[in-house]
Amino acid sequence: RAYAAFSVGRREGLHSADALQAVTFDTELVNLDGAFDLASGRFFCTAPGVYFVSLNVHTWNYKETYLHIMRNARAAAVLYAQPSERSVMQAQSLLLPLAAGDAVWVRMFQRDRDNAIFGESGDLYNTFSGHLVKPDAEL
Amino acid sequence: RAYAAFSVGRREGLHSADALQAVTFDTELVNLDGAFDLASGRFFCTAPGVYFVSLNVHTWNYKETYLHIMRNARAAAVLYAQPSERSVMQAQSLLLPLAAGDAVWVRMFQRDRDNAIFGESGDLYNTFSGHLVKPDAEL
Amino acid sequence: RAYAAFSVGRREGLHSADALQAVTFDTELVNLDGAFDLASGRFFCTAPGVYFVSLNVHTWNYKETYLHIMRNARAAAVLYAQPSERSVMQAQSLLLPLAAGDAVWVRMFQRDRDNAIFGESGDLYNTFSGHLVKPDAEL
Repeated sequence: RAYAAFSVGRREGLHSADALQAVTFDTELVNLDGAFDLASGRFFCTAPGVYFVSLNVHTWNYKETYLHIMRNARAAAVLYAQPSERSVMQAQSLLLPLAAGDAVWVRMFQRDRDNAIFGESGDLYNTFSGHLVKPDAEL
Repeated sequence: RAYAAFSVGRREGLHSADALQAVTFDTELVNLDGAFDLASGRFFCTAPGVYFVSLNVHTWNYKETYLHIMRNARAAAVLYAQPSERSVMQAQSLLLPLAAGDAVWVRMFQRDRDNAIFGESGDLYNTFSGHLVKPDAEL
Repeated sequence: RAYAAFSVGRREGLHSADALQAVTFDTELVNLDGAFDLASGRFFCTAPGVYFVSLNVHTWNYKETYLHIMRNARAAAVLYAQPSERSVMQAQSLLLPLAAGDAVWVRMFQRDRDNAIFGESGDLYNTFSGHLVKPDAEL
């Protein structure tokens, strides 16, 4: 099928354990053809074209929130919030051209300070979504 | 018509008056076939498929912001910010599979503290949008 | 071609220099047919229809963040954050009906206080994206 869409969530909180790590997910809202692998946190593109990708996370009090939306080994954009005693939602969204075989994922980056995103089982705070808006074949 | 899209806004502020209440809207940006009912705050799906839904609100100083994006009686995701003396934009977005007859709406949740979202007539802070990205018939 | 999509970014920070000014961009993620002019910060619509538009910016510490998503000379929606010692991501998104010749852009508004958005060359914080979700011809 020349189409793809995923929307996944993370109910469990996450604390940085390394300088760089993939954010994995535990909840599927939409996952056509299972193209998003929850365990590795990666969407694998088989339908090349332009995708819309959006990321929403909730900060953890007193922790830094430093994430990148990745295309393969490269950061396409950052989602960053300075630490604070107040937890808030944070977002990033963009269009990305993807070729067959490209992987899209979210990377947590621990620089000088601990990083974390908040989660709990009862509410879905953290979501990562993408869908094909225009296949290459129509461009 | 096998298509649907809505984008509505709320210019008026809103304070929680009950434990659970629907956020209603007062401004239409896009409302094809009038499928979004401003008075009840609900989009009624007649074109089944995968939808992209996004919510943006502005917090009210010293008040909690605790909203859910609802599909029928179930919360699909949360938008939550702790109270603070600083008002900010807050966002949530995701893909949702909708069947004919499903309703999508925003619920304000008053737990232990008063909840509110800020608004004013001159600027449109609060927006709620959704559009069909893939009809079931093409999946 | 009866299609359009853009996703641009700004790596350089921006401080308000006037009461009203266009936010310009320095990075292209997607820019079909060059319909987005980085130097003026404007997308010019040649494919009329309903567009999804999203804006993400990073605040500058102690500065106000007061931006509007503009359709021609009119503000469609606001992205506003009060100043603070904490920098965060801020977002707005909505659907906009666009006619041929319409321009979509981001305006920075300096009211009583200095405005700014943060940026740096190494990370892409500030993104502005739009794509046609339904052409008028199919409505």
